[in-house]
Amino acid sequence: MNNNFLYLRRLGIDTYQEPVVYMRADCDICRAEGFSSQNRVRVSFGERHIIATVHMVHSELLHHDEAGLSEAAWHLLGAGEREPAHFSHPAPVESMSFVRGKLYGNRFSQPAAEAIIADIRDGNYSDIQLAAYVAACADQLLDTAETIAITRAMVASGKRFDWGRVPVLDKHCVGGLPGNRTTPVVVAIATACGLTMPKTSSRAITSPAGTADTMETLAPVTLSFEQMRRVVEQEGGCIAWGGSVSLSPTDDIVIRVERALDLDSEGQLVASVISKKVAAGATHVLIDVPVGPTAKVRQEEMARRLGVQLVETGAALGLRVSVLCTDGTQPVGRGIGPALEARDVLRVLRRDADAPCDLRARALTLAAAVLELGGVAPPGEGLARATATLDSGAAWQKFRAICAAQGGMREPPLARYRHPVVAERSGVVAHINMRSLAKAAKLAGAPADKAAGIEMHVRLGEQLERGQPLFTMHADTRGELHYALDFLATHRETLSIEEPVR
Amino acid sequence: MNNNFLYLRRLGIDTYQEPVVYMRADCDICRAEGFSSQNRVRVSFGERHIIATVHMVHSELLHHDEAGLSEAAWHLLGAGEREPAHFSHPAPVESMSFVRGKLYGNRFSQPAAEAIIADIRDGNYSDIQLAAYVAACADQLLDTAETIAITRAMVASGKRFDWGRVPVLDKHCVGGLPGNRTTPVVVAIATACGLTMPKTSSRAITSPAGTADTMETLAPVTLSFEQMRRVVEQEGGCIAWGGSVSLSPTDDIVIRVERALDLDSEGQLVASVISKKVAAGATHVLIDVPVGPTAKVRQEEMARRLGVQLVETGAALGLRVSVLCTDGTQPVGRGIGPALEARDVLRVLRRDADAPCDLRARALTLAAAVLELGGVAPPGEGLARATATLDSGAAWQKFRAICAAQGGMREPPLARYRHPVVAERSGVVAHINMRSLAKAAKLAGAPADKAAGIEMHVRLGEQLERGQPLFTMHADTRGELHYALDFLATHRETLSIEEPVR
Repeated sequence: MNNNFLYLRRLGIDTYQEPVVYMRADCDICRAEGFSSQNRVRVSFGERHIIATVHMVHSELLHHDEAGLSEAAWHLLGAGEREPAHFSHPAPVESMSFVRGKLYGNRFSQPAAEAIIADIRDGNYSDIQLAAYVAACADQLLDTAETIAITRAMVASGKRFDWGRVPVLDKHCVGGLPGNRTTPVVVAIATACGLTMPKTSSRAITSPAGTADTMETLAPVTLSFEQMRRVVEQEGGCIAWGGSVSLSPTDDIVIRVERALDLDSEGQLVASVISKKVAAGATHVLIDVPVGPTAKVRQEEMARRLGVQLVETGAALGLRVSVLCTDGTQPVGRGIGPALEARDVLRVLRRDADAPCDLRARALTLAAAVLELGGVAPPGEGLARATATLDSGAAWQKFRAICAAQGGMREPPLARYRHPVVAERSGVVAHINMRSLAKAAKLAGAPADKAAGIEMHVRLGEQLERGQPLFTMHADTRGELHYALDFLATHRETLSIEEPVR
Repeated sequence: MNNNFLYLRRLGIDTYQEPVVYMRADCDICRAEGFSSQNRVRVSFGERHIIATVHMVHSELLHHDEAGLSEAAWHLLGAGEREPAHFSHPAPVESMSFVRGKLYGNRFSQPAAEAIIADIRDGNYSDIQLAAYVAACADQLLDTAETIAITRAMVASGKRFDWGRVPVLDKHCVGGLPGNRTTPVVVAIATACGLTMPKTSSRAITSPAGTADTMETLAPVTLSFEQMRRVVEQEGGCIAWGGSVSLSPTDDIVIRVERALDLDSEGQLVASVISKKVAAGATHVLIDVPVGPTAKVRQEEMARRLGVQLVETGAALGLRVSVLCTDGTQPVGRGIGPALEARDVLRVLRRDADAPCDLRARALTLAAAVLELGGVAPPGEGLARATATLDSGAAWQKFRAICAAQGGMREPPLARYRHPVVAERSGVVAHINMRSLAKAAKLAGAPADKAAGIEMHVRLGEQLERGQPLFTMHADTRGELHYALDFLATHRETLSIEEPVR
């Protein structure tokens, strides 16, 4: 094989989003072009090309005439096994000069923001270049004009929905609170009151359940854009998975690096939220900002500043934004895991006697704000209208209609193995470690096993007797059940019971 | 295999410096611990452990009870094939909080600098964390106190030589100029004049030759510390490869990321240079700063500012620094490639009639400054002393003695295939593209094939007749010779000849 061609092989290695190409150090192309590990290389196949990072292979993993692709590279390039691709040096990524300029104290202009975002979308940035971009945006280094420039560029880089009507409502929660599944209830109430609310949600990334995972136990959520449109035209709203429609595609790429660096940028957060909502075709959006010592937003002051940026950036993009600061001090509802959280949602919608009242109260507060924002309830009357819509059964009826339109409502599955864990002593629930609980739920199989997870029976500060159930572990296999229970047995701090102070 | 153990396999994949561990997505540990791609994992083997980045494997590349290691991970951990290692979640890298703080506007304290540099040395930073650190240091964001703190931390993180005498001279060139091989000549002159100059140099990373590659064609350069000491005690100096002694080990790690980001940080540059010189046991160092439009330092003003930082940081670490700004407008000498550059050096030392006079002049200027800095020539008399030492043959005699002490002097090899390329028209040499020339030299086999490269016969502005030789291509195989020639045939801009303006 000559002229810088090699046959492609899918190695099945997942490097997450960075495309990697594996090349033999002793292959003709590496020797001729001087490629070495960490270099960037342009891989062309027909009309398509990708920029990938080179990892050199010094073993017999590949034949002399082969190059391997990581999963990300494989999917981006779209070639088949053993098809020939052309390898060459890529042009330098010009927009990195704007990132360097920013680090040297310049500001991002609109053309700079567009060049950067387009390069990120096209996969032209390596992970370390992404990290430099994230660092350049860190904290308050982005002013409002720059945030608006980046938001515009992010919207321009992907698809944008047009629902052909106004208002189109949306909601978003900044920094998820465990179990905070208000979305299905809010959408049901808003659409029952005649508003348009085409909601897209995400799946879990590091948690035991995302809203899309939870909703999927009640109805199909993987809808094409045409399916979404049909559901929304028929019922006024939907609760779909956002991953199947490509809205603001750079956002996920940037968020992943921010997460790895644990480096929050208010400007990027604002650009991320607003760009996704504008791309989704919303005209009015309610943003829920839970404030609490272990939440993403820890102080009222930060919430206020963030609120101003969200409102101003939204306004520049033609989006009316309303911000609601809510209690972020403890988890919501009782279930941890897709089906268990869905049961909480159903109990609220069905007005069951044992519905978790914290979830009901939060959902009503948010729905009230959405009704007022959408103009179907006068200011101050949203809560009464939302409560009436829920209590009359209208929301429950609308929710079933939406589920039917999305492909048919179903009951959330029940796990095959369920094991209650009881209090070994009497006392007061003094601490709940949410991280350990989330880990145990994942060990039990969530979110892949939809029925797996933890059902809590107690809350912080509750007085308990010895032998009283604390929680029930749910799992689909006996192995996973024991795995999760073993973990909790060696992590007693997950739920600690103390003598009450007399 | 239970309890978070997997058998190790060396996959032969070179991820450069970032340690990577390949794990089956469906292995028990990944499922139990929730590891996924891009996560960091702690791999323990006996008393040793490393922190590595996870790449998930979805194919049969590994057995269920196996984990693969990249080359960097394999060498750091030091385990054998099929030995069992333990996998767990690493503690968060605490020093990243200082990097985040810096991005938010704080300054690095001495303890912060030490924590960061120690974590980088121990491989605890992922590539994207390194990129965030490099971004945080970018440009003038590091003040002199911070630069000193980082320099101290870098010295403390590695070995430090003590030669038991004062002065110990060293030299360094900021931003290499092609062909600028003054080091062997300067060391020969300085040691012939009685100074101590234990010089360590680097190999090529992206260029066709480094000083160590060039020197290796004349004598062995891979010396242990004990061998270096013996040579220096006997002859007063050496010209060895710095890679075999671990000086300022974090430096290479940081430089690689800076290079990939094309992000220069003056503070990091100063810390890098000064820490290596202090660790090498120098007391007096001359720093050559070539200034030119395509050199690393482009303006006198930047050179002056950099000079002040080098001198002040050196002083804080007990190192006397002298900075010399030199002409950085065009390459030096005639050879491109290890042996060809060595021939230029030999011609200067032997005082051959055809010695490249630019290389000779530069070497004498630098040697003069070293002699004055080392106190063996009064101010203003260094050049006369250096010239006399070279012209008397004393430097040549000393150079041969050093080569003999390092293991025996040898003649640089001559390539088997040599092909002259002639001017296709008469005119003036208007442009020389050094990047294309360097690439052609690498295609011909440099630096791995020591004899390969390009021998230039013309310089910028020279008047040529049609048919006059421009350069000769040197290669060890016919294939490589043609590869390099083909490249130049399709890259005519490499050396362009224009009608002289009348």
